[in-house]
Amino acid sequence: MNEEKRKKLAMVVFSGDMDKLFAAFSIAAGAAASNMDVTMFFTFWGLRALKKKVRTGRSFFGRLLGIFYGGDIDRSTPSKMSFGGIGRWMFKRMMKAKRVPSLAQLRQTALDLGVKLYGCQMSMEVMEIPREKMIDEVAQCVGVVTFIEQAQQADVTLFV
Amino acid sequence: MNEEKRKKLAMVVFSGDMDKLFAAFSIAAGAAASNMDVTMFFTFWGLRALKKKVRTGRSFFGRLLGIFYGGDIDRSTPSKMSFGGIGRWMFKRMMKAKRVPSLAQLRQTALDLGVKLYGCQMSMEVMEIPREKMIDEVAQCVGVVTFIEQAQQADVTLFV
Amino acid sequence: MNEEKRKKLAMVVFSGDMDKLFAAFSIAAGAAASNMDVTMFFTFWGLRALKKKVRTGRSFFGRLLGIFYGGDIDRSTPSKMSFGGIGRWMFKRMMKAKRVPSLAQLRQTALDLGVKLYGCQMSMEVMEIPREKMIDEVAQCVGVVTFIEQAQQADVTLFV
Repeated sequence: MNEEKRKKLAMVVFSGDMDKLFAAFSIAAGAAASNMDVTMFFTFWGLRALKKKVRTGRSFFGRLLGIFYGGDIDRSTPSKMSFGGIGRWMFKRMMKAKRVPSLAQLRQTALDLGVKLYGCQMSMEVMEIPREKMIDEVAQCVGVVTFIEQAQQADVTLFV
Repeated sequence: MNEEKRKKLAMVVFSGDMDKLFAAFSIAAGAAASNMDVTMFFTFWGLRALKKKVRTGRSFFGRLLGIFYGGDIDRSTPSKMSFGGIGRWMFKRMMKAKRVPSLAQLRQTALDLGVKLYGCQMSMEVMEIPREKMIDEVAQCVGVVTFIEQAQQADVTLFV
Repeated sequence: MNEEKRKKLAMVVFSGDMDKLFAAFSIAAGAAASNMDVTMFFTFWGLRALKKKVRTGRSFFGRLLGIFYGGDIDRSTPSKMSFGGIGRWMFKRMMKAKRVPSLAQLRQTALDLGVKLYGCQMSMEVMEIPREKMIDEVAQCVGVVTFIEQAQQADVTLFV
């Protein structure tokens, strides 16, 4: 395998919505399975996709955010028809019925295929989600310039 | 015209919002008019852009989804200021006053210019929208790997 | 510096949400700081990022839009947890505590680094936001084909 010839995908994952995360990880896993070199940069709401199932936040607002937007990747809700949690439950059932994997499973598949997951440092500070509250599999926590460097070398760039 | 020299645009259309679909089809039609080779992959909510004006869903949840998120491309609502349908009506009036085409017209323009529309198979299964409930002009229903292949060859990639 | 060798970023900014604008300008400023040639095309809700702090709209609906979606870049609200303005206030406080610049400051940084801001002509007409209600720093108001031309030459393309 000629490493320099591998096509690259660099993706910003801004959204923490269940449905968008599903699309992001499906594309990432599909690209890695097609022998692409894949990096995902999680920023803002997207950080939820990297969180452990723990409460976050130090300041008053940080804790408030930790409550309203708490939980791990499988607590994410769809961007439409959320209905205070019913939407998540409904989509989970519909996906299970079609034997679609859960988000946590899909993320693991992506990791197994070599997808690299990065956390955005500035978002982690603003949202008060420190490294130790994120899953061990996160490759690194980096600034926006690292994403720019990756994106410059990429053949495919997406903002989800 | 040297076919191999044509620039390519590969777009994922995840959103089914009126305003985002409008942006997606405007960019697609503009690119095709500029002699680009354009493919659009409709997934999740974006599938509405390919639906006929028919009711969908087999299971209880599928039917529920078919009711709440029913109709065809011209039943889509804006992502902001939806106000239970008033937003759609308002934007339609504002666009008409400026002689902006409707979404169905814009989609037809894109098709006439050679834009290829693909449906995402897995979303079609989860959302219970079979091929026969989608417009005839859909080129093919494919998996994520087909998008990856197209995106690898593309000069411009977007996720809408 | 060889001008032709500079890498290019072309971004569509469709969203007018505080958090997404923050991501868009952070990426743009980061790319410009990394010596990339950056162009941002503001369309639909994204136009708010270019507005002066003035009321817009001529027709009844245009004025209604001007009221509900009024103000300048610093009046934008987050895409989640908006809570009728409380979310904006909360995020502003959280960002300030972490010494993150305001959106207006970040936009100025991007401009100082040479980022070019374009307004989408068709959106300006539909939303009834004329050129004179937009900040002087806007480079030009253009059609979708200008974006296509820029995107074709770009190494990185994003839709925010």
